[in-house]
Amino acid sequence: MKHGGSKINVAVVGATGYVGGEIIRLLQGHPLAEVKVATSNRNQGLRLRDKCPWIATELALTPFDPGSIDADFVFLCQEAGFAMQHAPALMRRCRVIDMAADFRFKDLAVYEAWYKKRHLCPELLGRAVYGLPELVDCSEIADAPLIGNPGCYVTAASLPLAPLAKAGLLAGVPVIDAKSGVSGAGRSKTDPDYLYSEMTANLKAYGVVGHRHTPEIEQNVGCRVRFTPHLVPMARGIHATIQAPVVEGTTREQIYEIWRKAYEGRPFVSLQEEGWPSVKQVVGSNRCDMAADVDPRTGFAAIVSVLDNMVKGAAGQAIQNMNIMAGLPETTGLPLNGVWP
Amino acid sequence: MKHGGSKINVAVVGATGYVGGEIIRLLQGHPLAEVKVATSNRNQGLRLRDKCPWIATELALTPFDPGSIDADFVFLCQEAGFAMQHAPALMRRCRVIDMAADFRFKDLAVYEAWYKKRHLCPELLGRAVYGLPELVDCSEIADAPLIGNPGCYVTAASLPLAPLAKAGLLAGVPVIDAKSGVSGAGRSKTDPDYLYSEMTANLKAYGVVGHRHTPEIEQNVGCRVRFTPHLVPMARGIHATIQAPVVEGTTREQIYEIWRKAYEGRPFVSLQEEGWPSVKQVVGSNRCDMAADVDPRTGFAAIVSVLDNMVKGAAGQAIQNMNIMAGLPETTGLPLNGVWP
Amino acid sequence: MKHGGSKINVAVVGATGYVGGEIIRLLQGHPLAEVKVATSNRNQGLRLRDKCPWIATELALTPFDPGSIDADFVFLCQEAGFAMQHAPALMRRCRVIDMAADFRFKDLAVYEAWYKKRHLCPELLGRAVYGLPELVDCSEIADAPLIGNPGCYVTAASLPLAPLAKAGLLAGVPVIDAKSGVSGAGRSKTDPDYLYSEMTANLKAYGVVGHRHTPEIEQNVGCRVRFTPHLVPMARGIHATIQAPVVEGTTREQIYEIWRKAYEGRPFVSLQEEGWPSVKQVVGSNRCDMAADVDPRTGFAAIVSVLDNMVKGAAGQAIQNMNIMAGLPETTGLPLNGVWP
Amino acid sequence: MKHGGSKINVAVVGATGYVGGEIIRLLQGHPLAEVKVATSNRNQGLRLRDKCPWIATELALTPFDPGSIDADFVFLCQEAGFAMQHAPALMRRCRVIDMAADFRFKDLAVYEAWYKKRHLCPELLGRAVYGLPELVDCSEIADAPLIGNPGCYVTAASLPLAPLAKAGLLAGVPVIDAKSGVSGAGRSKTDPDYLYSEMTANLKAYGVVGHRHTPEIEQNVGCRVRFTPHLVPMARGIHATIQAPVVEGTTREQIYEIWRKAYEGRPFVSLQEEGWPSVKQVVGSNRCDMAADVDPRTGFAAIVSVLDNMVKGAAGQAIQNMNIMAGLPETTGLPLNGVWP
Repeated sequence: MKHGGSKINVAVVGATGYVGGEIIRLLQGHPLAEVKVATSNRNQGLRLRDKCPWIATELALTPFDPGSIDADFVFLCQEAGFAMQHAPALMRRCRVIDMAADFRFKDLAVYEAWYKKRHLCPELLGRAVYGLPELVDCSEIADAPLIGNPGCYVTAASLPLAPLAKAGLLAGVPVIDAKSGVSGAGRSKTDPDYLYSEMTANLKAYGVVGHRHTPEIEQNVGCRVRFTPHLVPMARGIHATIQAPVVEGTTREQIYEIWRKAYEGRPFVSLQEEGWPSVKQVVGSNRCDMAADVDPRTGFAAIVSVLDNMVKGAAGQAIQNMNIMAGLPETTGLPLNGVWP
Repeated sequence: MKHGGSKINVAVVGATGYVGGEIIRLLQGHPLAEVKVATSNRNQGLRLRDKCPWIATELALTPFDPGSIDADFVFLCQEAGFAMQHAPALMRRCRVIDMAADFRFKDLAVYEAWYKKRHLCPELLGRAVYGLPELVDCSEIADAPLIGNPGCYVTAASLPLAPLAKAGLLAGVPVIDAKSGVSGAGRSKTDPDYLYSEMTANLKAYGVVGHRHTPEIEQNVGCRVRFTPHLVPMARGIHATIQAPVVEGTTREQIYEIWRKAYEGRPFVSLQEEGWPSVKQVVGSNRCDMAADVDPRTGFAAIVSVLDNMVKGAAGQAIQNMNIMAGLPETTGLPLNGVWP
Repeated sequence: MKHGGSKINVAVVGATGYVGGEIIRLLQGHPLAEVKVATSNRNQGLRLRDKCPWIATELALTPFDPGSIDADFVFLCQEAGFAMQHAPALMRRCRVIDMAADFRFKDLAVYEAWYKKRHLCPELLGRAVYGLPELVDCSEIADAPLIGNPGCYVTAASLPLAPLAKAGLLAGVPVIDAKSGVSGAGRSKTDPDYLYSEMTANLKAYGVVGHRHTPEIEQNVGCRVRFTPHLVPMARGIHATIQAPVVEGTTREQIYEIWRKAYEGRPFVSLQEEGWPSVKQVVGSNRCDMAADVDPRTGFAAIVSVLDNMVKGAAGQAIQNMNIMAGLPETTGLPLNGVWP
Repeated sequence: MKHGGSKINVAVVGATGYVGGEIIRLLQGHPLAEVKVATSNRNQGLRLRDKCPWIATELALTPFDPGSIDADFVFLCQEAGFAMQHAPALMRRCRVIDMAADFRFKDLAVYEAWYKKRHLCPELLGRAVYGLPELVDCSEIADAPLIGNPGCYVTAASLPLAPLAKAGLLAGVPVIDAKSGVSGAGRSKTDPDYLYSEMTANLKAYGVVGHRHTPEIEQNVGCRVRFTPHLVPMARGIHATIQAPVVEGTTREQIYEIWRKAYEGRPFVSLQEEGWPSVKQVVGSNRCDMAADVDPRTGFAAIVSVLDNMVKGAAGQAIQNMNIMAGLPETTGLPLNGVWP
């Protein structure tokens, strides 16, 4: 399905949240797409810029009405549970990219167990494609009517681990210690925990046991993992530090070789040969940078991957999927460079 | 001088500093320009990405040799004093945009008094054009062989004040209290004052009396000003808070009316009608947002302007000048949106 | 009124807010006082440490009941309007230190005009003492049944300006550009503006014209001022940058001489002779550090003062008042050193 | 060895670094100790406050001369390698507390292998006592002429792990993912990596394989560990996230029970029963707060411990040792509360 001459029309549902705003910000720099609809039920009658003054646009905010959306693509930027309510209606009108978890799982039981809700349209799970372009068959994404777009933690953990697992290198449960910028908590928290004065100069673990991104990583990697997320005092970015028991004799060079084969020709996965990537080098970019070493004393591979939770971990990845679905180069309109300092 | 079909070739001198890196980062998103040369005398033999891992490029770092630069434009990202040494040689080979102060002053005596050095090529001051496109005649920029590109503090103070001064609204010395992100101090400081641990959760004034950006603001505004810069704990951004005594009876609406006339059709100056702009809404953008009110109790106009010191305050403004010089729309390749959160 | 052998009993009303928590934190290091009552209407049945895990205490949170408070001193850490409701009842049982504005103004009309509420017990204004120990007669504080404890902005602006005004040095409206840590906004904000992700790497002015701390500064200094507050990305601290027009010929040395006389023997006001104070040097301390210079080009004195908004700007100052009221040295239990880095 | 009536005289070697400054800051609040000597070879002739403006003191900086130090205790705040040069001379004059690694190891070979230097006085290793009061026999500390004071990472990792290892609960290599505030890098870095603009909004792993704190943790815990340190954008604090394989059937309650027994009556170790500790709740405090849970899916105990790297991780722990050595309660002069926000 190639894209013709006119621009791709896009609707963003939940436009004033961080992910919705980021999709719009990035698409204004996209040469072939245009945001035509931005919905926000709480902010009707306002312009987008009234709530998002960083975006230079006169776009109005409208209420969400699934029956009247006229677009090629709709991006759903809402909590889990929203997409499964509206996907059937929306799919009659446009292709759907969901930023939450409703269409990420192949196994209905896993979704329902970890998300603690009954799925409203399990029949769509088979038609939805998991939108991690570097790990799935892109021709499936190209033809998909519905994308379950993976999030930041899962992308950061799965990109380095999946090829190693597939190559048979893992010899035990990988420990994934993931650090996230606070924007991952969203823009509508009213809990004092997310106040500037509480989080600055602070750092805390949460969801230490049983975080619901665990099964999604396991679906991608193919084995159990020990996953712990943390909030750290930065607005954006994910830093995953992974300690994976590896089969004896595994070398650093083997890891890089497996990665090189897995990600050859994929511009958004970058293997760092020297030193360790820092989060900031990918903030603003759609890249995931990664590096590894092996500790023979303990038998672990030590792996670091970094990405921008708003870009490769959300909005950028969604646009990458849209590009593939529209028959465009996956890089169209997506930044490769980070913003530094 | 219109730009033809091939790409504009660019050389960046001082590529591993913050401003040099920012020019390259932005130009990689420019559809009609290409960075061909990136110099760094301290890092020969390395690739740019070895020192600037946020930039996805294989560009090599080369030593600076003014006699061999082959480019349409050269951006000089060095301290004051560098450009006047090399401009004569460089101008024989390409058009020169200097990020420092050597070619910003019309009055040689002012430069020499405030910068405490003798100018090496005063004869070029008459050929250099001051590159603040919203305040100068753009046809002069279009034809200029040499641009003195203004910096962050001066741009943030001059854009709101100059039209008001010209309109005769000022009735005394404006007090400019300017707050800068720490990146303004550059990347090569070894003084502990700029360490993370010293600057985080900190804030300090410097150059409180006699800062050398004072006369450049005065050149633009046409009157004396009381200017005080501060370092605040953020990497990027300028927030200028200006208290200007105004002629009796001056209203907020008058100020906006003067600004509207001055900046009609200029996409990078944005007048905020409600609330006050925050710095972050322009970080990553080439915009300068501004707002004002009047305090009749004391006779002051209170003005806020914000910009990104790396973009509209340095690299973005320089590219805006390059666009004008190349006959391109001034917005080509320059982001209008800020990056938030 | 000297304090005898037993400990001073203290009640803190609003114990889980930032100021209430800070009073308790500091009093746990006070050798002669003990917090016996900590109220929080929203958190009954919890321990203080459940809401304030930084405080190592088993103190329970109780509902506020003015008729049953049994203490020597009660600190009211609530919004303006609270103290005037409860002061009459509380004053029958203990001495009252109010952290808000109800008892700071000598002139009822000023309070009612700027705070937009009718005062409920104007007859107490004459008995209340304004608790800025370095500017008022400490014998009045010593005998006061009721203290209106000044806040951070007002203390930072008044300490440097008041002696200069009294000495006749001011020749026009001082411009006070004040920068505050975000904790000044309190702990119960639910507005997204105070979220970590919105405020980090950000800076904004607010209340630019007509902020209600203006008349309190004017009461202390004795002339009109142009006051503008800002939120900056740090949790604690106030940095006031003051540009004051001074009578011709005024020298830096004159300013310091006036300050030395005004603050001789006052350990919490510290005159910095070299360089400019940074905010962090007083964070955690009850000091206010200040410095000045004169700009003869424009006729302004440039003044910087810094303090910790939670300590000298709130809780520390209140304890300083309590010490004086209890006949103790004013420094008892109060830190002089800042916490760095 | 009880302390008599006069004050304990203290000398601090390396007074202008972060640890030296913190010792002095804390000792100024100690009722029974007084800093008499503060050395800094680079800053002779200056006062301490000229380099450390947060400390309100007139103390002069003097050159380090081991033969003339007249004190009860000397704190050595220098890099590894310094103490072993000067300990023999200093021990003739006073008791020595070394903040670096020279006297932390029981096994000379381990020190020499990991620190890559020959030990200059191995005969003193047997007389030195490892100063982690909650894990060693305090009567040994009380009598020690020389203390090897453990650092932040090791304390944060060892306090939760050592009792579990001793109880036989560990069933594999614990993975320790430790996050440190940037002050851990010290005050004299000139590498741009530690600049504010590079570290703010950033996070990076370092020493991922082979960090030299590994063997010190192993000495305390008694088994191999996989240790990875990270720099995170905060000035102070350590957050250790530990994933320890445990014997089947291990419960959360068992872990707490072991901890309760190990740390009964130790005021500086605090077990958090609900939620997970955040770093900021211990910043400014000498506490180490910890919590745990068990993930039966994977067989790991998940443990979090937090402390202030400057206090319990350095200066506070050293003063705790000094208190014990002087026969004082270990809590004397040491803050239990954190500073928040």
